[in-house]
Amino acid sequence: MYPKRAFRTHLAGFSLGLYAWLAVATAQAQPDPLPSWSDTVAKQAIIEFVQATTDNTKPTFVPPEERIATFDQDGTLWVEHPMSSQIIFCLDRVPALVAAKPELKDAEPFKTVLAGDRKAIAKLPMADLEKILAATLSGMTVAQFADEVSKWIASAKDPRWKRPYTELAYRPMKEVLGYLRDNGFKTYIVTGSDQDFVRVYAESTYGIPPEQVVGTAGGTTYGYGKDGKPLLTKDPKLLLNDNNAGKPEGIHLMIGRQPVIAFGNSTGDKEMLEYTEASNGPRLAVLLLHDDADREYAYGPANGLPETKVGPFTQELYDEAMNDGWVVISMKNDWRRVFAD
Amino acid sequence: MYPKRAFRTHLAGFSLGLYAWLAVATAQAQPDPLPSWSDTVAKQAIIEFVQATTDNTKPTFVPPEERIATFDQDGTLWVEHPMSSQIIFCLDRVPALVAAKPELKDAEPFKTVLAGDRKAIAKLPMADLEKILAATLSGMTVAQFADEVSKWIASAKDPRWKRPYTELAYRPMKEVLGYLRDNGFKTYIVTGSDQDFVRVYAESTYGIPPEQVVGTAGGTTYGYGKDGKPLLTKDPKLLLNDNNAGKPEGIHLMIGRQPVIAFGNSTGDKEMLEYTEASNGPRLAVLLLHDDADREYAYGPANGLPETKVGPFTQELYDEAMNDGWVVISMKNDWRRVFAD
Repeated sequence: MYPKRAFRTHLAGFSLGLYAWLAVATAQAQPDPLPSWSDTVAKQAIIEFVQATTDNTKPTFVPPEERIATFDQDGTLWVEHPMSSQIIFCLDRVPALVAAKPELKDAEPFKTVLAGDRKAIAKLPMADLEKILAATLSGMTVAQFADEVSKWIASAKDPRWKRPYTELAYRPMKEVLGYLRDNGFKTYIVTGSDQDFVRVYAESTYGIPPEQVVGTAGGTTYGYGKDGKPLLTKDPKLLLNDNNAGKPEGIHLMIGRQPVIAFGNSTGDKEMLEYTEASNGPRLAVLLLHDDADREYAYGPANGLPETKVGPFTQELYDEAMNDGWVVISMKNDWRRVFAD
Repeated sequence: MYPKRAFRTHLAGFSLGLYAWLAVATAQAQPDPLPSWSDTVAKQAIIEFVQATTDNTKPTFVPPEERIATFDQDGTLWVEHPMSSQIIFCLDRVPALVAAKPELKDAEPFKTVLAGDRKAIAKLPMADLEKILAATLSGMTVAQFADEVSKWIASAKDPRWKRPYTELAYRPMKEVLGYLRDNGFKTYIVTGSDQDFVRVYAESTYGIPPEQVVGTAGGTTYGYGKDGKPLLTKDPKLLLNDNNAGKPEGIHLMIGRQPVIAFGNSTGDKEMLEYTEASNGPRLAVLLLHDDADREYAYGPANGLPETKVGPFTQELYDEAMNDGWVVISMKNDWRRVFAD
């Protein structure tokens, strides 16, 4: 078992002295791979982990083919508060859905969404939300769906920042993705959002190709169009709910290897982080704490804000992270900047 | 649309003349990437396709990230006749299964399998076979399953050749895999066999890592062992039947891109080959014909042999291939050798 606590032990506190100074000096001799990160324990833990796993003279070396890194998306790679972009996309699709199926006009939960009452929408129970997702993420070909997502992602804007959602990707995390790839890691998104949705922009936003996006997935049905050409239609049937236990299950289904490093920010990522920590050899679980109300949001155990549907982490998960030596990132203290500019 | 018929048009028949001679001479100036192939239309079609899609001065150029190549396994990359290796593995597991669950001893189809009557086993209806697969491919952790497959694959031997199944991979196809990878293609197995089974030996046998094996998949359930460590247990629940329409559906689920080149040998590959041929740009569908009773087997439309459960192709599929300009490989005429030695 890799001495996970070593990071904490020799990097925290006042006794750092010469060792820490040398480490910082050495790091500065090369271009800093994580310039948007403050020089704190979190940054050092990530860098030490990469150095330990890529140096083939060390017992902690991990062969390149086993360097699997998995990242939750919503709240870990970009803003998820107060609602994930994919849920907003689905809500935005409701008028078009009702136009095509007028019988839904007076049926709940579609009626509430059409009325545009944000507070009522935010209070919809999970079962209603699932009805909306199933209806808006199905019934078209996969090509039509990708077109619709492309158009939406190019035009929709976050109401607080008035900018496209893809510009709300966290710059420090994009640096981590690039740093890991530069060191031979294969970076995957493992998301509770619909994988067909995320695949549309993952390559341009994060440099992650479609085949490295694992997410919640509905089934598709193969058939033939009027011209006789094959096509795949999206079904409302859920194949994989890529949240909670569904994350390691999805990782096994689509990757077939255990990650060596994983990043998450919520209870929905708990099992993926545990699964990453579970196997032999060097492993690192990283949990991002949203504690920066000024630059982003503060929600979670220490912030007095209620959990959102997409789920920040609870006190229980925070305790598990601290007890098991996971790295906890404080957005407020560990990041010099949050967004691209 | 890429002029698929061009291969046939300028390479077949007596009018080849200088052009064909030049093509062969050019190919011979570099080391032959497919030395186990005879210099026939099939080999030339594969080489021309790779040249057309990797030359960025041509309109047929395909960017590296879109170079997805998919291969059926059983009957396309290795011997599937008279029964696929994974089915033999499942039958071989029945005694251990019955030892653990004695109530199955007198229940069909387990009773027939235990009796060892090969003819009766071969005649089991598909529903019975599915019962055996579900029971023998579940009920253990994914790590225990991988261990069992490793042991079996290292010791089991094909009754005709008295050699491990992994030595019955087709050498000409291994050359194609390597040739495509050398030209920036990502090679995937898309198999009707259980993907956890194939993933165990795919890297050492074909150079294909676990995350590039798409196959029939059961669900898993995340839980904790007695030591509190996370583990994944294989369920008897089928998530993806990766045969027929399930192949393009599985490709969409796990890769999210349409292949540009695909290889198959049976009706179970029909939809994958059609799906590959369906989109714009250069595409190549390749069908392997088992017509070599001496060196391997002869089964399929022209050979008077009945279809096996794992399914060779029918006359109808053969006609579709010929009408749509797919490349049809004759094992007998297009391969100089079949196995490694």
